[in-house]
Amino acid sequence: MSKPNYSRRAVLKAMGLGVLAAPIAGCSGPLTSLAPKAKQPNIVLIFVDDMGYGDIGCYGHPTIATPNIDRMAREGMKFTQFHVASSVCTPSRAGLLTGRLPIRSGLTRVLIPQSPGGMPDDEITIAELLKDAGYATACIGKWHVGSKPEHLPLNHGFDYYFGIPYSNDMSPGTQPDNPLFKDQPPTPLIRNFTVTNPDKEPDQRYLTKWYTEEASKFMKANAGKKPFFLYLAHTMPHVPLFASEKFRDKSLRGLYGDVVEELDWSCGQILETLKDLGIDDNTLVGFTSDNGPWLGKKLDGGSGGLFYEGKVSTWEGGYRVPAIFRWPGRIPRGVTNTDFATTMDLFATFARLGNANIPEDRIIDGGDISPILFGNGPGREALMFYYFGDELWAVRKGPWKIHVKTTSPASVSTWGEWPIEEHDPPLLFHVEHDPSEKHDVADKHPTIVRELLDVMEQHRRNLVAGEPQR
Amino acid sequence: MSKPNYSRRAVLKAMGLGVLAAPIAGCSGPLTSLAPKAKQPNIVLIFVDDMGYGDIGCYGHPTIATPNIDRMAREGMKFTQFHVASSVCTPSRAGLLTGRLPIRSGLTRVLIPQSPGGMPDDEITIAELLKDAGYATACIGKWHVGSKPEHLPLNHGFDYYFGIPYSNDMSPGTQPDNPLFKDQPPTPLIRNFTVTNPDKEPDQRYLTKWYTEEASKFMKANAGKKPFFLYLAHTMPHVPLFASEKFRDKSLRGLYGDVVEELDWSCGQILETLKDLGIDDNTLVGFTSDNGPWLGKKLDGGSGGLFYEGKVSTWEGGYRVPAIFRWPGRIPRGVTNTDFATTMDLFATFARLGNANIPEDRIIDGGDISPILFGNGPGREALMFYYFGDELWAVRKGPWKIHVKTTSPASVSTWGEWPIEEHDPPLLFHVEHDPSEKHDVADKHPTIVRELLDVMEQHRRNLVAGEPQR
Repeated sequence: MSKPNYSRRAVLKAMGLGVLAAPIAGCSGPLTSLAPKAKQPNIVLIFVDDMGYGDIGCYGHPTIATPNIDRMAREGMKFTQFHVASSVCTPSRAGLLTGRLPIRSGLTRVLIPQSPGGMPDDEITIAELLKDAGYATACIGKWHVGSKPEHLPLNHGFDYYFGIPYSNDMSPGTQPDNPLFKDQPPTPLIRNFTVTNPDKEPDQRYLTKWYTEEASKFMKANAGKKPFFLYLAHTMPHVPLFASEKFRDKSLRGLYGDVVEELDWSCGQILETLKDLGIDDNTLVGFTSDNGPWLGKKLDGGSGGLFYEGKVSTWEGGYRVPAIFRWPGRIPRGVTNTDFATTMDLFATFARLGNANIPEDRIIDGGDISPILFGNGPGREALMFYYFGDELWAVRKGPWKIHVKTTSPASVSTWGEWPIEEHDPPLLFHVEHDPSEKHDVADKHPTIVRELLDVMEQHRRNLVAGEPQR
Repeated sequence: MSKPNYSRRAVLKAMGLGVLAAPIAGCSGPLTSLAPKAKQPNIVLIFVDDMGYGDIGCYGHPTIATPNIDRMAREGMKFTQFHVASSVCTPSRAGLLTGRLPIRSGLTRVLIPQSPGGMPDDEITIAELLKDAGYATACIGKWHVGSKPEHLPLNHGFDYYFGIPYSNDMSPGTQPDNPLFKDQPPTPLIRNFTVTNPDKEPDQRYLTKWYTEEASKFMKANAGKKPFFLYLAHTMPHVPLFASEKFRDKSLRGLYGDVVEELDWSCGQILETLKDLGIDDNTLVGFTSDNGPWLGKKLDGGSGGLFYEGKVSTWEGGYRVPAIFRWPGRIPRGVTNTDFATTMDLFATFARLGNANIPEDRIIDGGDISPILFGNGPGREALMFYYFGDELWAVRKGPWKIHVKTTSPASVSTWGEWPIEEHDPPLLFHVEHDPSEKHDVADKHPTIVRELLDVMEQHRRNLVAGEPQR
C-alpha cells in the first residue's frame, strides 16, 4: 500500500458524515505529529463471537463469573455505547478490519466454506497499516472474511495466522443435517496457509486454550523486539459451544457460562503474559464482541442485558456490545465511558497509536477515538445500522434512532426464518433515555424523524457499494 | 420485647423451611457467642424505592452514572441473586423489618393514607432488636407500614423518624384525578410524630437532599457515643420523580436518571460522612431496593436489566434487586457474590452483628447471612414468591423456580389492571441458567415440578397468616 502524506482535515473529510461529533481539540498538523511521543504500543484486540452486552459480570450478568474481564474494566475503561459495524460475523469483521462500513468492501453477507468471495485485494486492513508501520502482526482465531488462500490473513497484513477461517458450525461434522455443508471439509484449523486437520474435525473443546497458547507464544516472540498487533478473535461463544474439562460444568450459567468463563480465563492469561513480559505499560488491550447474542439458540445463546433482541437484528441488542480498553498509565482506571463509538473506529485509533498512515484515497467510516480513551474526546455523531451489511434499516444520530424496518430473530431457531416488519412512519427511540427501545416516540418528534430519514437518504445517495462478496 | 436465651439450633428451627442451605460451620453455642469480638458495628441500610436490578452502572446500565454506588461495590460485595420479600412497597418493607414473610404480619397489601392498618404491636422489628441491644436507631425516609400514630417508626423501635409515611403519589396534590386520594391531606413529611407541612405538599425536589442531611446529622450525633442503626429509606425513584436543580437535566437517561444520580450522590455523602467521622471501618453499609422497576410508568420507571418484568410481578424482574454491602476490613473487597439471599435475611444478620437477641417465639424466615458477607457461607435454599404478600404464585428452590400464576404489569399503565394468567402445568425455569425466565422446561423435569409444588403445598399447610392489615 502507499503511504500518502495527509492532514487531519483530510482524514476528517474522508471519514464523511457521522463519525466524530467534533474535531480533536487543538490540532491541525499532520496526524503523525499527534502520536504519543512514547514508542509504538503493542496492541492486543480480543474479539469474541456472539457474546452479548449482558454476558459479563461488570455488565450485569448474575451467574457468569468473569473476574478477569471485570479486572480489565477496573484497570481500564468500560464502554456502554459501543457498537459493531454489523450484527453478523462477516460484515462485522470486515468493518473492524477496514474501518469502513461493510457495504464499501462488499463483505455484507455471511460467507460459507464454498464462498469464492472474501476481503478484496484493494481493501486495506488495520493489520496492513500496522505492519507497514513496523509491527509484527498475528491473527489468531476466527477470520471469516474469506477462506480461499487469496483471502486468508497472510494476504491481508498478518505475519501469522492460526485459527478457523469461518464459523465453527459450517461443516458436515457440526451440522450433519444441513445440505449446505454436506460436501464441505471438516472445520479447518489453519496455520498460515496450511490446514492442520485435513481429515477430521478439530477438537473444539480446546480451541480457546490453543488460541490462548498461540497468542502467548506470539507475544513472547516479539516482546522487546518489535511492537506487535495481536488480533485474537475467539471462535467461542459461537454455537456449537465447547469448553475444556477444566471449565466444563463449572459455571452457574450452564454450558454457555462455562464457555464464557474459559474466555475470561483466556483474558486473564493475556494480561498475565503481558505482566510477565514487562510490557504491561506499553500495551493497549481491547476486548469486545462481533455482535449481540444468538438468541434463537435459547440456552446456548447469550444475553443482550437490558437491550432488545440480538444477533442479526438492527436493535441495540444486535449492535451494542461490551467493550473494554486497558492501557496502564495511559487510559484512566475504572472509568465508565458513555461515548458513542464503534469497532470501525478502532481502525483509525490503532493506526494513530501505532504511527501508521491512514489511507486518504477512500472513505474511512471510523474515527480516531484515542482522545476518548485517554479521557477527553467527543463521541461519534451517527451510525448507520445495516441489516447484514447491505440493507440500511436504521440510523442513530445523537441520542435518536429511527428504524424503517426491523426483525426479531430471537423468535426463531432456524437461520433466516425470522419475520421482517416495515415501519412507515418509522419507529423513533431516544436510546439514551430508553436503551431498551420500548417506547416509540415518533409521533411526538416528527422533525427528528424527518431529519434522520434525510441522514439515511443522504448516506444512500453518496454511497458507492463494493462488489458483493459471496 | 422479651430477651429469651436461645440456642442456634432453636433459631435454625424457627427459621423453618427454606432459609439457609446448611448451618453456619462450627458453631453450637448461643448465638451471642458468635458475635464478632469487636464492638457493635454501626449499621446503615440504604433502601431505595422501585429501583430495578439494571439501573446502576455496576449492574449494567449504559446511561445512568452511579460512581458512588459502583465504588461501594468495588470496596465491598455485590450480590447478584438477592431478592425482596415482596415486589410491592408495604409487604416488602414488612418483610425486611420483621425478617418474616409479609403474610405472617398481615402486611400484605399496599397501605394508603386512610388505611387504619399497619405494623402490628406484636411484631418485632430489627430496630426494636437493635435498640434493645444498645443501638441508637433512626428511620429516615419512606415508612409505608402504617401511617396512624401507633404504627409510626417511634412505636416500632426507632428513636427518630423523619420522612413520608407512605408513597409519594398518594395525595390530592400528586394524583388530582384519583378519587382514592381526593379527601386526603397533602403528602405528610413527618418528624417523629409531627407533620411538618400540614397545609401543603412538600417540595419533593429536595427529599433526597433533606433525607441525606438528616442521615448525616444522625450519624454525627451518635458517632463515638453509641452504635447506631440508620434505616435510610429513600422516597425516590418512586413516581412522581423529582430531582434537585443540581441533578435535574444532568443525566443521559433523562429524569429517571437524574433521580438515580442524585441517590448515588446521597450514597457518596453517607460514605464521606462515615470517613470524616472516622467510623468507616466499624460501619456496615448496605444498599438495596424494595422491589423491581415500575415498568408501566414507561420512561419514568427503571429497568430490571436482563430480568423479565418488574414491580408487582413474581418474575425475577419484580423480586430480584441490586444489593451491595460494604464494611472495610470485614467484608472482602470487590467480590461478586452469587449466593441466594433476601432482605428478610438482613433481620437475623443485623441482629447477629449487633449482639441482639433474635426472638424464638415465632417463625423468622430470614437467616443470618453474615458468613456470606464475610466470604464463606451457604446461600438460602428456597424462597416463596407471593403476589403482593398473600397469594403464593411461585417458589424457587435451589436453581429451580416454578410459577403457578403470573402477571405482566409492564403491559399496563393503570394500577391493578394487569392481566393474570394461571399455569397448569406450572412453568419451570432454571433461573441460574436462564435468569431471564425465557425457556420453560417443565416438560423435561416433571419430578422437579412435583417437588416444588410439594414445597409450596407444605408451606401453605404450615402457614399461620396474620390478621390482614388494610
